[in-house]
Amino acid sequence: MKLVVALGGNALLRRDQPPTAENQLANIRRAAQQLARVAAQHTVVLTHGNGPQVGLLALQAEAYTGVEAYPLDVLGAQTDGMIGYLLEQELANLLPAARVVATLITRVEVHAQDPAFQYPTKPIGPVYTQAEAERLAAAKGWAIAPERTGWRRVVASPLPQRVLGLQAIAWLLERNAVVIAAGGGGIPVVRGAPAAVGSGSGAEAADALQGVAAVIDKDLCTSLLARELQADVLVIATDVPAVYLDWGLPTQRALGRVKPAELAGQAFAAGSMAPKVAAALAFVRATGRRAVIGSLDHIEDLLAGQAGTQVVADAAD
Amino acid sequence: MKLVVALGGNALLRRDQPPTAENQLANIRRAAQQLARVAAQHTVVLTHGNGPQVGLLALQAEAYTGVEAYPLDVLGAQTDGMIGYLLEQELANLLPAARVVATLITRVEVHAQDPAFQYPTKPIGPVYTQAEAERLAAAKGWAIAPERTGWRRVVASPLPQRVLGLQAIAWLLERNAVVIAAGGGGIPVVRGAPAAVGSGSGAEAADALQGVAAVIDKDLCTSLLARELQADVLVIATDVPAVYLDWGLPTQRALGRVKPAELAGQAFAAGSMAPKVAAALAFVRATGRRAVIGSLDHIEDLLAGQAGTQVVADAAD
Repeated sequence: MKLVVALGGNALLRRDQPPTAENQLANIRRAAQQLARVAAQHTVVLTHGNGPQVGLLALQAEAYTGVEAYPLDVLGAQTDGMIGYLLEQELANLLPAARVVATLITRVEVHAQDPAFQYPTKPIGPVYTQAEAERLAAAKGWAIAPERTGWRRVVASPLPQRVLGLQAIAWLLERNAVVIAAGGGGIPVVRGAPAAVGSGSGAEAADALQGVAAVIDKDLCTSLLARELQADVLVIATDVPAVYLDWGLPTQRALGRVKPAELAGQAFAAGSMAPKVAAALAFVRATGRRAVIGSLDHIEDLLAGQAGTQVVADAAD
Repeated sequence: MKLVVALGGNALLRRDQPPTAENQLANIRRAAQQLARVAAQHTVVLTHGNGPQVGLLALQAEAYTGVEAYPLDVLGAQTDGMIGYLLEQELANLLPAARVVATLITRVEVHAQDPAFQYPTKPIGPVYTQAEAERLAAAKGWAIAPERTGWRRVVASPLPQRVLGLQAIAWLLERNAVVIAAGGGGIPVVRGAPAAVGSGSGAEAADALQGVAAVIDKDLCTSLLARELQADVLVIATDVPAVYLDWGLPTQRALGRVKPAELAGQAFAAGSMAPKVAAALAFVRATGRRAVIGSLDHIEDLLAGQAGTQVVADAAD
């Protein structure tokens, strides 16, 4: 089967861990052990989040007074290089030597007029107390928002419209390479005149693409990629075993096999489970194929339909 | 023809420029205009340096006190993502829409026992006065060394032994994609037990690969890549028009067409022209084909044999 697997930010860095290189490497190694077993059986494209990492790079760039901090598209590209390298290496260490693992840097087109540029929602960087977050927001001009365990900086997260590196991914998949691509939701770029936001390439042509200061949701981007590649299954691997209704309430219950019509209209946590559910719905509705959401630790059971939330087409038996 | 083109660090950032995103983007755009003309005519693999960029990331990481600075292999991977993204975008903006431009993250194996780990020579980051450099060396434990215009931090630069992502590059070239790869000389990795230096993946297998704190010379790595890909021409594009004998002396003269036997034994600037000459020699001796060293601004003339230093096989007419 051809699988597109999204690796949650928490699989790379737990919320309670400092974002050291050692911690990320240890987590990536653990993830690679699960992923290598799947890659041994299937054709696989891997994507990954970058929220904690891109936030850290932004803080480091701001801490150094010598040069103005790079825009988010450039910092995102840096995280893709880093995470892609570490993932590729750990996977390649576990797979047969003849199996190629390739990491591609992926640009993803977004609309310059996406309303997300006015309403930042994507959390990046560390979790702060409310007081810390408010102080930082005032000092640095950040937008901030609360989430489960505290407050975080939030940035614009426009909808992915087109995966620009699709052809190279498809060619490498034809050779059964394990492809790591679209890290951090892909690097957001817009078509047309230099935007007020972002690095602005200043390219001359009116239809030139240029970077824009944003972080695309990696689940929504992965869903788009899975549709464009005509994947058999979209796997959204995270640190919880399934999608829950009434999360945190006495009535909380995990969803097993479920159809789009049953999911639509339910409320899930913004910036967390909501985009995963939306990503799964979009894939299943567009393709009639299966999307699964669950724990990376049970990825083989997820694929076998034995664990996690299995989103199947409305027309499925 | 199949070309492997190394883009010098100075083509991306001049020594007199602050390493802002704007400056790099403007330089990359200018470079892309030269490169796009060549890519329109030939099959092209592009590599690039990362000395200023990896040095800046190291400074930023040190300036932020929240997390210990990442090792050089990880920082190098970050620069590959960033520079690759910007180069890919500017090239793709200038090439026909159907032409695929793909950026791969490339690991390169080095020997864990390479003597370079004891004798750092590769300059990274900004140029300092001698007094500044000595103060920083004492404070941060850096090795430092003088070069043309001042002093810089120097790091270990082991010889590249094997390009690990070679197969993916070759597959994409078969489709005539423009491939950006082996940025910054590739990400240095070693085989075997965890090294004292570097990020150390801690992978279990005795023959596992893991990152190591170093920066490989991009010209030597590009030469290896060109040999392994059986390129027709190796192009080393820099900011001077040719290789010079007696550089800076009254007897200074540019070399035009030259054979390996004439170059061997001449002295060139370490960390600058010396690795370019060594890279060209290694390619020409191994393949009997041509290597050219000269200005990116004249790359079409370089290819036509009308400019730069043209290193041809000893057996050539």
